[in-house]
Amino acid sequence: MADEKFYNLAGPFDLNHIAQLVDAKLYEKSEPNKVIYDVAPLDKAESNDLSFLDNPKYRSAFKNTKAGACIIHPSQIKHAPKNLSLLITEDPYKSYALAAEAFYPTIRPEPYISQYAHIADNVQIGEGCRIEAGAVINSNVIIGSYCHVESNAVISAAVSIGDDCVIGANSSLSHCSIGKRVKIYPGARIGQEGFGFAPSITGHTKVPQLGKVVIHNDCEIGANTTIDRGSGPNTIVGQGTWLDNLVQIGHNAKLGRGCIMASQSGLAGSAEIGDFVFIGGQVGISGHIKIGDGVKVAGQSGVIKDIPPGLTYGGTPAVPIKEWHRQTNILASLIKSKGGK
Amino acid sequence: MADEKFYNLAGPFDLNHIAQLVDAKLYEKSEPNKVIYDVAPLDKAESNDLSFLDNPKYRSAFKNTKAGACIIHPSQIKHAPKNLSLLITEDPYKSYALAAEAFYPTIRPEPYISQYAHIADNVQIGEGCRIEAGAVINSNVIIGSYCHVESNAVISAAVSIGDDCVIGANSSLSHCSIGKRVKIYPGARIGQEGFGFAPSITGHTKVPQLGKVVIHNDCEIGANTTIDRGSGPNTIVGQGTWLDNLVQIGHNAKLGRGCIMASQSGLAGSAEIGDFVFIGGQVGISGHIKIGDGVKVAGQSGVIKDIPPGLTYGGTPAVPIKEWHRQTNILASLIKSKGGK
Amino acid sequence: MADEKFYNLAGPFDLNHIAQLVDAKLYEKSEPNKVIYDVAPLDKAESNDLSFLDNPKYRSAFKNTKAGACIIHPSQIKHAPKNLSLLITEDPYKSYALAAEAFYPTIRPEPYISQYAHIADNVQIGEGCRIEAGAVINSNVIIGSYCHVESNAVISAAVSIGDDCVIGANSSLSHCSIGKRVKIYPGARIGQEGFGFAPSITGHTKVPQLGKVVIHNDCEIGANTTIDRGSGPNTIVGQGTWLDNLVQIGHNAKLGRGCIMASQSGLAGSAEIGDFVFIGGQVGISGHIKIGDGVKVAGQSGVIKDIPPGLTYGGTPAVPIKEWHRQTNILASLIKSKGGK
Repeated sequence: MADEKFYNLAGPFDLNHIAQLVDAKLYEKSEPNKVIYDVAPLDKAESNDLSFLDNPKYRSAFKNTKAGACIIHPSQIKHAPKNLSLLITEDPYKSYALAAEAFYPTIRPEPYISQYAHIADNVQIGEGCRIEAGAVINSNVIIGSYCHVESNAVISAAVSIGDDCVIGANSSLSHCSIGKRVKIYPGARIGQEGFGFAPSITGHTKVPQLGKVVIHNDCEIGANTTIDRGSGPNTIVGQGTWLDNLVQIGHNAKLGRGCIMASQSGLAGSAEIGDFVFIGGQVGISGHIKIGDGVKVAGQSGVIKDIPPGLTYGGTPAVPIKEWHRQTNILASLIKSKGGK
Repeated sequence: MADEKFYNLAGPFDLNHIAQLVDAKLYEKSEPNKVIYDVAPLDKAESNDLSFLDNPKYRSAFKNTKAGACIIHPSQIKHAPKNLSLLITEDPYKSYALAAEAFYPTIRPEPYISQYAHIADNVQIGEGCRIEAGAVINSNVIIGSYCHVESNAVISAAVSIGDDCVIGANSSLSHCSIGKRVKIYPGARIGQEGFGFAPSITGHTKVPQLGKVVIHNDCEIGANTTIDRGSGPNTIVGQGTWLDNLVQIGHNAKLGRGCIMASQSGLAGSAEIGDFVFIGGQVGISGHIKIGDGVKVAGQSGVIKDIPPGLTYGGTPAVPIKEWHRQTNILASLIKSKGGK
Repeated sequence: MADEKFYNLAGPFDLNHIAQLVDAKLYEKSEPNKVIYDVAPLDKAESNDLSFLDNPKYRSAFKNTKAGACIIHPSQIKHAPKNLSLLITEDPYKSYALAAEAFYPTIRPEPYISQYAHIADNVQIGEGCRIEAGAVINSNVIIGSYCHVESNAVISAAVSIGDDCVIGANSSLSHCSIGKRVKIYPGARIGQEGFGFAPSITGHTKVPQLGKVVIHNDCEIGANTTIDRGSGPNTIVGQGTWLDNLVQIGHNAKLGRGCIMASQSGLAGSAEIGDFVFIGGQVGISGHIKIGDGVKVAGQSGVIKDIPPGLTYGGTPAVPIKEWHRQTNILASLIKSKGGK
């Protein structure tokens, strides 16, 4: 079970209740009244635990699990150990997420404003907020209800933040407007000046960065991720877009809704990304290009041209993923045919 | 216009005045007495706004702009909409920068030392400085005049900082000497121990890191960028060099004057970079190599050998950029000729 | 010599004493009673200084050094300038490290708890700790003896930290258990939620992250490096593993003992890395794969499949290093034979 120092276990729940909670069906021989006390990974679960199988890499752990019940896709029923209760769903990972949330419900922190937070006079803070010691909130900031500003976060003048946000420890926000239910992880940097300059051998000239960062509702911004403000246009992160840790978003870049950027990927200035685009780890996307809706980009790729909607790309420079695999295969076969030194 | 919560608009100015400010010439039919109230991008500008065209990607926006005036290169005159006043210059981006600075002049923050800053007794702070709440300044630190130390920045013992610097929120500085007019962005880490060790299967031995970081005048150090101190020699960032966000500079590395390193690029230990070198995003440069003056390196390249002055390189391992383009073309043609699976 | 503002010089020591300290032998003509006052790089050393030669790139500096003595490998004796005293060892870099540590011994900071640190009531802090201004230590945290918590570090509830640790400025720790003699560099982020979600076009569902981060004894965690906590299993960093700056460790990843990850490299979720694995800068390692003991991965590689123990890999996708070199050579020869545009 999860370390009780850090997590509070709810429940127990019977399988019938869980099946309803997670939008799954109990498989025929399963016991609807069986009581489940916790969630656990396949290889750690015991007879009172609920587990799940999503990535087929873990099928052998599934075959040997001692869990009391397991959430699986219908295609995995045939691999199930005898006597294991099964919850069947098209999306086992999502169903597991809902079950885990039931056993370990998110607890809204107690409202509280630390006397050691530094809060300017003309600040609006909604009801139910928690502001920790060392947080700094400057003049004309507006913070919605039920927000949690963690220790040593710095919120610069005139920033606005919607309801139900978390502003992580040691993060810094300036020149930005943040929607509702946004989670900013520790150390994220939002709204600093973009990297805009007119280069010259006599000294580069800074171009004033006069825009802001707009983060829409339901976004997550990872630890130590950096989002520069726009130079005139704004830098925009669309609704429900999630950025992992150490991601870079350049000035004027626009991300649509529901995008995912994995760790250490970067979006250069003025790039435009559609909706539901998935960008792998360490990918680089050049400035001033457009990526269509639903595009996927494989990890470490370098995208230097527009990509039409719906395609999957890979490699540097990025090409359709099948071409990239062929390049790799051809290189491998050339080595075998030519030997090489 | 820029969000007035964050920016203060100056002006208005007539075109004649602007042309002088930005070192441009008014094109023949333009109206010298036309009054301009603001700057704006081509697609947002209205009849009282000044805009600019630099990147030819935006030429169609230029052709359709409703701006009152536009800064352009002489080669673009033929694409200008009728009745648009034109300011002609060899460097439109620089001229725009100067215009934007006139409309939104940088405002030096009010001098002030927060009672909630933690400042050791034996610290020298020049006139006109602003030190925000939560900033920590340790013993024997020397700070020049007109510096702005933002909230929760940590300046360790004996660090020296020249005049007119900005030390960003939540940044940390130790074992370093910073020149004048240097801007350290939020979350930058400067002067921590380098990654130097003698590896061994019985446990790696740390090599004491006895140098410092020297940052010369007029540098910018991006958000969450890390610069390790030297192991004995110093790590050096030359005058007017600008580092973007999330850049890594290893111990003993030396950057010359006027270099640019784009986001997520890295310089390994003891690398030596000449003057006016431009390094693209996510580039990696190996340790102990030399890059000559004026070199350019394409994004995501991996440089593992010295590069002579003036050349442009790309790829991993990096080769002259034309060779890299040929590699890419040959791979593409092999796919077509061989099919591949 | 090292800048006396930052470092305190011990010594002097005679060569006989140094040879014993660093486990080296004095070469025949060297003077055992020669007194050495400092350590210095080959090109800066003077007649009272000790230097070392490890990387053969610096042999010409060795031939011309004015050092009073030098630590070298036996194979370099023949290149030594006449009259230079030599300390001979199989591992000159390690011996230099020991000598440098003797001249500049690590000084444990004075025990002290700043009145401007924010420490919850129910916290255990061992003897001899130093807690700086602005540090935040939340309820139920346990800190061992002789730890140094630097300014503006944030330690969340129930975190445990062993003896002799350094928790760097502006770092943040939550949901983690830290061993002894661990050094966390400034701005590191440890224990935040992993990037786990069930993707969907109607909005991604967060998977509760119920594990923690376990960092074993003698680790170093670089500046602005991020280590996410596990989703159920824990994220584990094995004994004596050292991470450079800006490294990403995804949830559930496991690193063995004595590993090295250079700057800007990343380990995706649930990857398993053996003991004494060396990972170059900007390397990406995919999720759910296994890397055997003693593997080495060249800089910027992308590892997408398991690697058996003891091998060296390079390239994207990573292959055995000799194959990667052949790929590079073949591409170069194709350019020459085909010309290309």
